[in-house]
Amino acid sequence: MTFSTSPAERTVPVGLGARAYDILIGSGLLDRSATFGGLFANDTSALIVTNEKVGPLYAERLAAALRPHHASVQRLDLPDGEAHKTMATVERVFDVLLRGHADRRSVLYALGGGVVGDMAGFAAACFMRGIPFVQVPTTLLAQVDSSVGGKTGVNHPLGKNMIGAFHQPRRVVIDLDTLDTLPQRELVAGLAEVVKVAAVADAALFDWLEAHGDALLRRDRDALHHVVSASCRIKAAVVGEDEHESGRRAILNFGHTIGHAIEAGTGFGTWLHGEAVGCGMVLEAALSVRLGRLRDEELERITRVVGALRLPLRAPSMPVDRYLEFMRHDKKSQAGHLRVVLLEGLGHAALHPVNDDDVAAVLRAELTQA
Amino acid sequence: MTFSTSPAERTVPVGLGARAYDILIGSGLLDRSATFGGLFANDTSALIVTNEKVGPLYAERLAAALRPHHASVQRLDLPDGEAHKTMATVERVFDVLLRGHADRRSVLYALGGGVVGDMAGFAAACFMRGIPFVQVPTTLLAQVDSSVGGKTGVNHPLGKNMIGAFHQPRRVVIDLDTLDTLPQRELVAGLAEVVKVAAVADAALFDWLEAHGDALLRRDRDALHHVVSASCRIKAAVVGEDEHESGRRAILNFGHTIGHAIEAGTGFGTWLHGEAVGCGMVLEAALSVRLGRLRDEELERITRVVGALRLPLRAPSMPVDRYLEFMRHDKKSQAGHLRVVLLEGLGHAALHPVNDDDVAAVLRAELTQA
Repeated sequence: MTFSTSPAERTVPVGLGARAYDILIGSGLLDRSATFGGLFANDTSALIVTNEKVGPLYAERLAAALRPHHASVQRLDLPDGEAHKTMATVERVFDVLLRGHADRRSVLYALGGGVVGDMAGFAAACFMRGIPFVQVPTTLLAQVDSSVGGKTGVNHPLGKNMIGAFHQPRRVVIDLDTLDTLPQRELVAGLAEVVKVAAVADAALFDWLEAHGDALLRRDRDALHHVVSASCRIKAAVVGEDEHESGRRAILNFGHTIGHAIEAGTGFGTWLHGEAVGCGMVLEAALSVRLGRLRDEELERITRVVGALRLPLRAPSMPVDRYLEFMRHDKKSQAGHLRVVLLEGLGHAALHPVNDDDVAAVLRAELTQA
Repeated sequence: MTFSTSPAERTVPVGLGARAYDILIGSGLLDRSATFGGLFANDTSALIVTNEKVGPLYAERLAAALRPHHASVQRLDLPDGEAHKTMATVERVFDVLLRGHADRRSVLYALGGGVVGDMAGFAAACFMRGIPFVQVPTTLLAQVDSSVGGKTGVNHPLGKNMIGAFHQPRRVVIDLDTLDTLPQRELVAGLAEVVKVAAVADAALFDWLEAHGDALLRRDRDALHHVVSASCRIKAAVVGEDEHESGRRAILNFGHTIGHAIEAGTGFGTWLHGEAVGCGMVLEAALSVRLGRLRDEELERITRVVGALRLPLRAPSMPVDRYLEFMRHDKKSQAGHLRVVLLEGLGHAALHPVNDDDVAAVLRAELTQA
């Protein structure tokens, strides 16, 4: 596949009334001061929250773009990785804010992947009961999923994202150039969330992914622009309908119930989040087939796409009961009963109560196949 | 002063649209199951968060009243006192919730004073990004102030309530009988918040307090019923106008800017919050006089009421710069500039920027007077 024109800058609005904001998608946005204009009074202070890997690459460029908009720009590099997505790390953000005399009008900029975005967003949600923040996602996973929608939080040893808040960013700035420095393993992990939004909400995007997996893996800029824009557009629509996940938004958890069990069971950080979601989608699609909501051929198409994108297909070996235990801690569970997002044909999904026995049967079939 | 009839049960509605709730005020409410009815599905689980002092007195009675409404009722006794109002203590609540397989429909009941209410409310705000909670305040301070309005949070070594969230309770149940076991020092501390709401919003209540201080100190039940009801009514009106303190709600911080500096400077828990607010009100009233917004006679009336209620009038001895440093960390500060609630005659108040010099002059006069 080839594209003849260079990708245009695009704006995707997220319609949330008083909390509405824009997602800007394009090249070279990070260095352009205008990207960050029109949001805050210029006597306010800014803190860039990033990590030890991303900070050295991009923080100075972001700081330069921000200086015209703020009285001061500080920076904090957190340790990298899901294992550090804890309350203890968030407390470091509070310490820096307070020592720097931050106030209620201070602004946090989350520069990095989903872990940085979730923690900086949660710090912004809680500091002085809420200060503004801006997402500047630099991984594909954060660009297509975690930076949009206002879910923030940290992990607990017993479960992922157990402690958190809904706190919408004031803007999301996606500079596609930052993907140039992304390790291939993380690029692939990000593609899992693209497969997810396609599987639950956009059959045409799913068809497109089947046709263009190679272009994505070799980082064709236009192909990446296409999936980032499409994912943001779908996510914005779902979040605009149901900000606090009381209904439809739950479909974005497809692959995540078993995925979270994989992450927690293997120790956070062993599997990348997207890898666990990729494997989780195949298993939850198999559960959808078992419960009569998805056809065998559709499960095969999902398995094929996940595999073609080089995502792991084999679930880690651990006792079925341990999977179930972690799944019962899932935020969608009610009174100890599992609820899982099931596909209802490709491009459609809904949250359903499921029996432990059905989940166990699917897991057992998978784990003995290896 | 005497009252001829026994105090009636009263309901004060807090008008916050989709987050509206009722404050129930009366005697014997804690033992009445109906007090807690109509809120939650009865297959949900409940956790009573209380402390080591209040738990042994009331938790079993509350649990008995809750059992008809929940599938299970657990209890957690936290250590008592402002010094324990930290993130580390809140994490104990998360641990108990997760070990008990709590889910998004689980309910927290905060049984105790302001510290318990602030921490349980914050835990409810953050657990799985928000679960419902009910306030059952057992101290006068919590009944007249902290249990209403949805401010939740914990302290940071550099400042009070720096980490928190706005999270409205689903109901507030004020059983006046619980005041019977309240130590006199805490009763007196609670009266400071009553003086505060009167000073900023209700001159008639202020007159009443001048006339009935003795009745309050000897715990006349009708006098307590009167001030709890009046304070809740005023607070509900202010919060209903400005839930997130973007404007008028700030007046409820009268006495709190210097009060927080006293608490932080002496080490949280040395002065009770209400004691610090009492002293803070006298100093902030003196600042209001200095800035031409309050008359000398009005300052004298405030000083007299605070003294008559046995609240400490003398500020703790610490360098003026240290006061100013803590005040600059106050959540109302902007870009390092102090903002303080000033009285504009008794019964009226507004937030104003103030100079360090004016605050220093008032503090210096006070501290050299001792």
